[in-house]
Amino acid sequence: MTVRIGVIGAGMIGQYHIGRLTGALAGAEVTAVTDIDPARAAEAAALAGGAQVLPDGPAVVSSPAVDAVLVTSWGPTHAEHVLGAIAAGKPVFCEKPLATTAEDCLRIVEAEIAHGSRLVQVGFMRRYDEGYREMKRILDADGIGEPLMVHCAHRNPTVPEAYHSRMAAQDTAVHEIDTVRWLLDDEITSVQVLTPRATRHRFPHLTDPQIMLFETARGVRVDVEVFVNCQYGYDIQCEAVGERGLVRLPDPARAGVRTAERHSTGVPQDWKERFGAAFDTEFAEWVASVARGEGATGPSAWDGYAATVITDAAVEALEEGRTVAVHLKDRPPFSTPGAGR
Amino acid sequence: MTVRIGVIGAGMIGQYHIGRLTGALAGAEVTAVTDIDPARAAEAAALAGGAQVLPDGPAVVSSPAVDAVLVTSWGPTHAEHVLGAIAAGKPVFCEKPLATTAEDCLRIVEAEIAHGSRLVQVGFMRRYDEGYREMKRILDADGIGEPLMVHCAHRNPTVPEAYHSRMAAQDTAVHEIDTVRWLLDDEITSVQVLTPRATRHRFPHLTDPQIMLFETARGVRVDVEVFVNCQYGYDIQCEAVGERGLVRLPDPARAGVRTAERHSTGVPQDWKERFGAAFDTEFAEWVASVARGEGATGPSAWDGYAATVITDAAVEALEEGRTVAVHLKDRPPFSTPGAGR
Amino acid sequence: MTVRIGVIGAGMIGQYHIGRLTGALAGAEVTAVTDIDPARAAEAAALAGGAQVLPDGPAVVSSPAVDAVLVTSWGPTHAEHVLGAIAAGKPVFCEKPLATTAEDCLRIVEAEIAHGSRLVQVGFMRRYDEGYREMKRILDADGIGEPLMVHCAHRNPTVPEAYHSRMAAQDTAVHEIDTVRWLLDDEITSVQVLTPRATRHRFPHLTDPQIMLFETARGVRVDVEVFVNCQYGYDIQCEAVGERGLVRLPDPARAGVRTAERHSTGVPQDWKERFGAAFDTEFAEWVASVARGEGATGPSAWDGYAATVITDAAVEALEEGRTVAVHLKDRPPFSTPGAGR
Amino acid sequence: MTVRIGVIGAGMIGQYHIGRLTGALAGAEVTAVTDIDPARAAEAAALAGGAQVLPDGPAVVSSPAVDAVLVTSWGPTHAEHVLGAIAAGKPVFCEKPLATTAEDCLRIVEAEIAHGSRLVQVGFMRRYDEGYREMKRILDADGIGEPLMVHCAHRNPTVPEAYHSRMAAQDTAVHEIDTVRWLLDDEITSVQVLTPRATRHRFPHLTDPQIMLFETARGVRVDVEVFVNCQYGYDIQCEAVGERGLVRLPDPARAGVRTAERHSTGVPQDWKERFGAAFDTEFAEWVASVARGEGATGPSAWDGYAATVITDAAVEALEEGRTVAVHLKDRPPFSTPGAGR
Repeated sequence: MTVRIGVIGAGMIGQYHIGRLTGALAGAEVTAVTDIDPARAAEAAALAGGAQVLPDGPAVVSSPAVDAVLVTSWGPTHAEHVLGAIAAGKPVFCEKPLATTAEDCLRIVEAEIAHGSRLVQVGFMRRYDEGYREMKRILDADGIGEPLMVHCAHRNPTVPEAYHSRMAAQDTAVHEIDTVRWLLDDEITSVQVLTPRATRHRFPHLTDPQIMLFETARGVRVDVEVFVNCQYGYDIQCEAVGERGLVRLPDPARAGVRTAERHSTGVPQDWKERFGAAFDTEFAEWVASVARGEGATGPSAWDGYAATVITDAAVEALEEGRTVAVHLKDRPPFSTPGAGR
Repeated sequence: MTVRIGVIGAGMIGQYHIGRLTGALAGAEVTAVTDIDPARAAEAAALAGGAQVLPDGPAVVSSPAVDAVLVTSWGPTHAEHVLGAIAAGKPVFCEKPLATTAEDCLRIVEAEIAHGSRLVQVGFMRRYDEGYREMKRILDADGIGEPLMVHCAHRNPTVPEAYHSRMAAQDTAVHEIDTVRWLLDDEITSVQVLTPRATRHRFPHLTDPQIMLFETARGVRVDVEVFVNCQYGYDIQCEAVGERGLVRLPDPARAGVRTAERHSTGVPQDWKERFGAAFDTEFAEWVASVARGEGATGPSAWDGYAATVITDAAVEALEEGRTVAVHLKDRPPFSTPGAGR
Repeated sequence: MTVRIGVIGAGMIGQYHIGRLTGALAGAEVTAVTDIDPARAAEAAALAGGAQVLPDGPAVVSSPAVDAVLVTSWGPTHAEHVLGAIAAGKPVFCEKPLATTAEDCLRIVEAEIAHGSRLVQVGFMRRYDEGYREMKRILDADGIGEPLMVHCAHRNPTVPEAYHSRMAAQDTAVHEIDTVRWLLDDEITSVQVLTPRATRHRFPHLTDPQIMLFETARGVRVDVEVFVNCQYGYDIQCEAVGERGLVRLPDPARAGVRTAERHSTGVPQDWKERFGAAFDTEFAEWVASVARGEGATGPSAWDGYAATVITDAAVEALEEGRTVAVHLKDRPPFSTPGAGR
Repeated sequence: MTVRIGVIGAGMIGQYHIGRLTGALAGAEVTAVTDIDPARAAEAAALAGGAQVLPDGPAVVSSPAVDAVLVTSWGPTHAEHVLGAIAAGKPVFCEKPLATTAEDCLRIVEAEIAHGSRLVQVGFMRRYDEGYREMKRILDADGIGEPLMVHCAHRNPTVPEAYHSRMAAQDTAVHEIDTVRWLLDDEITSVQVLTPRATRHRFPHLTDPQIMLFETARGVRVDVEVFVNCQYGYDIQCEAVGERGLVRLPDPARAGVRTAERHSTGVPQDWKERFGAAFDTEFAEWVASVARGEGATGPSAWDGYAATVITDAAVEALEEGRTVAVHLKDRPPFSTPGAGR
């Protein structure tokens, strides 16, 4: 009953997931790999303990040795591979973004509806972080009353020169966008972006930090500080304020040290350290849902579509300096933002 | 060398300060009291251990038994009494607001300049809170690099029915307005107000919560959550994010308790519990500065003027639903926002 | 290269580990199971996805379908099965205790030495808890200077009626005994037990709480509060104090909640919640070491022997009301207390 | 109604208290000072704003300008001055110790009983620390059930060469001894002292750290780590464990800083920083009780006697390496350990 997985895209994130599917988690094996760089594909296949190297995505999708597909290729290629998997009736896990345009996301949503059951899962791993899950349980149990506001921060110590201003929404805040939709079971309807004084610790082309302000259909206000050159660590904060109280995402547990006049604890330095366990849980649950024949239970194609529309709006809000309304299509019946738990 | 203080306004806050000047702090005595309600004036005079009851503010200001004046009367009367004290050349401590209009504040600023040295101090007590002072020391020592953003929350468990939407700026966020100007040594230049979904735990006429967004002359972005019916406690949060790190206001120290499956600490329930020690320090330092002949070293008439202009702008931003620019006059030479430390 | 594991003892803890070896971790499968209760063995075999049910421990050890043995049977039977595995030259993971008498533990140590390389690992899972590992890294990196004292607490909400006073050492403090030896890379040389006022929330035959005081060969003093009816939660505390500072085990990360005048976080309620991730890591590392042909890298037979001698001494100290010296044999060459990292 | 205070002993601690009685607290003035060093007495008198310098303790006690006496002289002289004040029927605040021998303490207890009402207060300031007071309120309100154990630590960064091993009990743990008696409303009945490996950061004559183990009349076990060369700060810890939960003394509130991969807060560096506010409250309450004619409401002569007997026992336990029973006389009617709140 082992799930045989074919991987399209053998770069850093692809190899990261091949490692956990092969060496850490039960129930899966990576049987096929492809990459535009054949040497990298071979390296990943070896990491998988001897997977087949196939020439391209369609070969992976159609391989009889592949039960389910993992898409970790370059973003612009995602739509093609996900649509291919749906056409083949195979479950597909696609790292964010689901597609780089709203139109492509919608095509995926519609293809999956035509198929008739869920096949697509998008890689929003925070829904699998134990701290966020505890927040979600508390919110769902009416632990703080009706939510009214959410305050978030997403800080990276540094980013490489290739990181540009649009990526603050597309690559960084996209996690908060998905998380907040899921935590609140609510939809984002508008976005505004503030640009504080820029840090000197950035490349000149980058607007950093940015503060994104979202409003939801129920009127909840969400602020997200995106600060990707904060120097001190990879620091993720989230606090939901409701009518009777608030709930705050915990910092990771770290040993307390008292030396040299200070009490201190360590701050994680990258996303692997911070969310490694969440990735493990995400893939363990995905593999289990595929093995049960459920296709996918986590973030849906619709979530991937919404994230792309909202990040597009955030980029527009940044570039045009105004509040931008978010226009989503009507939601199809079987993909709900609450999925994933 | 005891400073003899005359008090104008013997309501709750007036009696609160008479109590500390009489029974807690060295170096001062309350020698004269007035109030529009003679019974209340008599009560306060007794609390002061036998102060004179005088018929009105001018009588207090001009009394030869009064070295310095404390104005704790109804806001609209502040300007008159402060101007009276300046005219008499006597130091005057005025609870916020300095005056209810920017024009009156400016008249006070100009009268004090004409006098030639500082006489006026405004009651922004947070500058005397040990937690804020530690933040200020860290910021001034370049502990986190150049500040870029400040995130604040000001939460009250409930407010009385008389509390209306403008008071979110005038009575509540005014503290954050002053504190941020002082912490950053920077000036606020614009304000926008967001209105999240309203809590059901409010009187219908009130817009609660509100999120106020300020920008400063140096481009720092400040967000202030004002939520005055949060139910759970009186909770003040402030976090400054700079180019190399952040500094966060500490919660008050409270005993940790582990019972019934939870680890917990108490949250203060009102401003007296939260800032009682700050009020003591504020008056101890004011009395000492008066005794030294310095008149005032804390928040200045200019700070009072700026706070009124900015709260006016916040009210306009709330009521008109747009970003409002803050227009301050040129700052006179001897009143600086950094005063108070 | 999957490690095929035979399980001896299919009770609660046996099934708990079968679950993770089968459904969570890569690299292992449970191929054979035995139990004194055949129905329970069958249940466990089904949980393992169709393992063989074998009649007894020797059958499991000698099965050609078994590469490594997991002993989770009743304590008094551990020695027999571990010795059997050594005789067969197969790696064996034995839940604590290694054996119920020091003599049996020594027989195991000697048998493994005769075998010539490590085969035995004892189930002290705390060495795999990320918090303890961070403490260990800090201690080993001289982060607090030479250790002088360790303060521990081991609290359970309640225990069943079958729990008796000796189990405070044998079942409960045994974890601290192993952890402290490993953290300090030092040996315990004496023990004294204090008996505070007893809680009313215990069965009358039980001495609860107990405070155990250990001394190590280097003179470090260790105090362990054992309180197994503390009512409020499963709470594990550990603080090492050194010449330049201290390091404290973190509490598990839990969402902070502010409601009803309190800020609070949850306290775990049982050891599975507290150490579930540590068990996962323990078995992942054991399976990997077996797959590499290393037999075992974690807590050794010597550690199991030392734990039994020290818990015997603690029981004697409790029952006789005096300080009891710990007499260990000379340590053999390849089993070191530092193993496990 | 100002309380006129005469101070016997104008060293560091005497001047520290003169400063607060003169410049910080209402209701008192220092009218007379004496010291064996006339220059130091003159300096202290100036600090008090012009107090009389008197030749010796009896002159202070008998001065008609003195309503109440503060004894801050060298310990061996305390008894004489306290007895003098009782003979004169004047309230007297005596810094710890009340007297250096149990016999002298008893003479004071008996003299005060003969006088017929409380005149003596001993300077155990921790009863006035807000954190300890919150612990006391929680214990008294049955917040954690019947107490069973108390874990304490008293750490100083360093001590001068004159500090010797007996002072660990006499000067350092004496605070925990008083605090625990007061928190628990219980009496200490025995003491044992453990001597961990000594830190290299001490003068060779000093046994540091020490762990003191107390038992109370109700069977509560108390452990106190005394570590006076811990290097990193002045750190006071106290945790009471009861039948249903625990309560822990809070650390002082300090701003949280995130920089350079760490989240950190400052640790106080000396007792003035840690307990300055407690000293203020202690003297404010003492002055108020004297002004009301109550003589004293804080730690009593009996508390001073008990502290001396218990520290003597702790010294004996250290020097003789055995558990020492504490033998107190029968407690007189009006001095209770619960006094002070």
